[in-house]
Amino acid sequence: MEFSSKLLENAVYEVSQLPGIGKRTALRLVLHLLKQPKEQTTRLAGALVSLKDQIKFCKNCHNISDVALCEICANPKRDETIVCVVEDIRDVMAIENTNQFKGHYHVLGGKISPMEGIGPHDLTVGSLINKVKEGQIKELIFALSSTMEGDTTNFYIYKQLEGLPVKTSTIARGIAVGDELEYADEVTLGRSILNRVPFENSFKT
Amino acid sequence: MEFSSKLLENAVYEVSQLPGIGKRTALRLVLHLLKQPKEQTTRLAGALVSLKDQIKFCKNCHNISDVALCEICANPKRDETIVCVVEDIRDVMAIENTNQFKGHYHVLGGKISPMEGIGPHDLTVGSLINKVKEGQIKELIFALSSTMEGDTTNFYIYKQLEGLPVKTSTIARGIAVGDELEYADEVTLGRSILNRVPFENSFKT
Repeated sequence: MEFSSKLLENAVYEVSQLPGIGKRTALRLVLHLLKQPKEQTTRLAGALVSLKDQIKFCKNCHNISDVALCEICANPKRDETIVCVVEDIRDVMAIENTNQFKGHYHVLGGKISPMEGIGPHDLTVGSLINKVKEGQIKELIFALSSTMEGDTTNFYIYKQLEGLPVKTSTIARGIAVGDELEYADEVTLGRSILNRVPFENSFKT
Repeated sequence: MEFSSKLLENAVYEVSQLPGIGKRTALRLVLHLLKQPKEQTTRLAGALVSLKDQIKFCKNCHNISDVALCEICANPKRDETIVCVVEDIRDVMAIENTNQFKGHYHVLGGKISPMEGIGPHDLTVGSLINKVKEGQIKELIFALSSTMEGDTTNFYIYKQLEGLPVKTSTIARGIAVGDELEYADEVTLGRSILNRVPFENSFKT
C-alpha cells in the first residue's frame, strides 16, 4: 500500500498491529475516525492510554480491577473456599453472567503454550499454589477451554497440587442445551455419556 | 456486559464505536493491548491523535496529504487536464496501483446518499465545478462505485456540468480479468457486450 501521507500511513500501521485487523480494515477504521468529530479520536486515545496507565490487577485473584482488591474478592457474601480457575477476564464475565457460581476466581492470565513460548512462570500458577498451601481453599474448579493448551495447563496445575488437601473438579463437557445430537462431535458426545447425571439433577438450572 | 473495571469498560466502549467492531471484538482488542508493552498503546493513541490534529487535505484535489498541495497535484509530469473523480483516498490508492493513469484526481469525500443524510454540499462537488469553469480541465473520468449512490452522484455532477466545455467518461464496467462468464451477473455481462472494444485494443494492458 502506497500512502500519500506519512501521518495516515503511521496511523494505519499502528491500528493494523491489533490482532485480526489487516491493513485494509485499519485504513477503513482510520478513515472513519477522520470523518468523525475530533473528540471521538481524543476519547478513544485517552481511554486506551489511561486503561494501560491506571489498570490494576486484583492482588488476590489477578482479575482486571480498578482497585487493589476486586469486587468479587472483596464481597463477604462470596465463598472463598471454592475457587474457579479461568484463563482471563472474559471467562470471569461469562461465568458471572450465569449467576450459578458464588465462589472466588483465580485468573491465570493465559494458558501454557510451548508454541507461543508461554510457560507456567508467565502465568499466575505460583500464586494459586501458594493460596492452596495456605489451606483456606477446599475446592478448585478448572474452567479452562478444552483445547490442547487448556488440558496441558489443567494437568500441570493438577500435578503441582499433589499431596495438598484440596478437591479438584472441571466444568462438565457435553452437548450444549438446545443443540441437536446428530451435529455434536464424537468426543463431546462420548464425554456427555460417560459423565451422565442423575435424571432428577437435569431439571436444576 | 458487566465489567469489573470502569477503565476497561470505557476503553471497550470507545473501541466498539468504530464501524464493524462490536463489544466482544472490542474487548478482545483491548485485552490484547493490555498484554503488550505500554509503548504499543502509547504509539497507537499518539498516531491517531496526531493524524486527526495535523492531517491536511490537498487544496486542489481534496485528497489526504501531509502538505497543502499533495504529491500528485504537485507533480509537473502529471496531466492536469484529465481529472479522475473518486470517492475517497482508497480509490486514489487503487487507481495509482494500476500505473495506468497519469492525470489528476478529485476526491469527493463520499457519495450523495439521502438515506445517510449526505447531500452534494457535504461533498467537494462545488470545488470540482469551479475547477471545470476555470477551463483547464478537458476530461472528467467518473470512477465512483456503481451503486445507487454512486450513480446518483455521477448524474448530479453530470447535470451541473451542462453547457461547460468538458468531456466526461466513466470507467468501463465488465467481466473482471480472469473471471468466468457463467458466474457474472446479468447487468455486468450485458454492459460488457454493449461496451465491447475492438479486438486489437484488448491486448493492451
